[in-house]
Amino acid sequence: MYNKLRAFSKNLAKDIPEEEIELICSYFKPMTALKEKILVSENEIASQMYFINEGCLRAYYIQENGNEATRYISFEGGFATSFSSFISQRPATDNLQAVKKSQLLRISRADFYHLADNNIYFQKIYRRALEIGMVHNIWRLETLLSMDAKSRYEDLIKAQSHIVQKLPNKIVASYLGISQETLSRLKGKSK
Amino acid sequence: MYNKLRAFSKNLAKDIPEEEIELICSYFKPMTALKEKILVSENEIASQMYFINEGCLRAYYIQENGNEATRYISFEGGFATSFSSFISQRPATDNLQAVKKSQLLRISRADFYHLADNNIYFQKIYRRALEIGMVHNIWRLETLLSMDAKSRYEDLIKAQSHIVQKLPNKIVASYLGISQETLSRLKGKSK
Repeated sequence: MYNKLRAFSKNLAKDIPEEEIELICSYFKPMTALKEKILVSENEIASQMYFINEGCLRAYYIQENGNEATRYISFEGGFATSFSSFISQRPATDNLQAVKKSQLLRISRADFYHLADNNIYFQKIYRRALEIGMVHNIWRLETLLSMDAKSRYEDLIKAQSHIVQKLPNKIVASYLGISQETLSRLKGKSK
Repeated sequence: MYNKLRAFSKNLAKDIPEEEIELICSYFKPMTALKEKILVSENEIASQMYFINEGCLRAYYIQENGNEATRYISFEGGFATSFSSFISQRPATDNLQAVKKSQLLRISRADFYHLADNNIYFQKIYRRALEIGMVHNIWRLETLLSMDAKSRYEDLIKAQSHIVQKLPNKIVASYLGISQETLSRLKGKSK
């Protein structure tokens, strides 16, 4: 149950002793989220951080026309929540959803910051996770600001091909910020 | 020279003692960047973090068609660099430029991480700066993914009106991901 969180912790804080890993794990509680379960809704304040043990979560916005825009998609072995709301404690503008049935480890915000403020290894883990998130978000901004649909699709194949392979076109198109028709055309061409 | 860095440090680490602020300041060296000076170029590896004392820096991409896409614009009182390259030590894909003559305080990456790894107050400052960056980048992604040109312009006026007021249309349009013509139309309408 905790093996992926153990590996994630060791990877982000190389010098972490076994007993500190076990201490950190003891704050995380297992839970199952069924397919399409909403873990944070728009206007709610995020009170939990989730570590994905198995499955897939995504954060998305609902546009004025009712269409969805997916900001991020996270598979096993990473943190997920409505980050802006979790950090700032303001109402979420996005929705966090289980794309398929997912095994999660959840920790309350109070416990998360207790560890981040007091445990030197968790401090490292959180700083490194924020740095990885920063690099990822900058890559997303770069693709949206400076690439056309074709380059954006090709870049996604290079960087995160599992998203294109594993998820329905509707979600992939909403992640790329393109229509499903354009995505089908690009998929056809690249075969 | 160091007053804004002192205020920034106190704001992000409330309990920081005066002597620790002075220690942190001693690692930052003053420099002037003339208007349009490039501080990090595409393909270079970022080796410095800049604190903006006075002036304005921006990070931008050059698109295949030669147009520029501005990812962020930072005024006095914040850190700036090519963050992905600074963190990952891979070649930058963006350019960091002084929009106007700017007074900066610069710190080498080695000194920056020395402080981040060893000074408990700078640890707090860096974590908080990363959290603020995370919230900002998520807001940028939200505007690009889920808003049309008009909503994006109105949202920018609400969140960062100084960008629209102080900078040339060319840069504002490249920040919003819209054409200069569309920006002129939106500015005309909102008067």
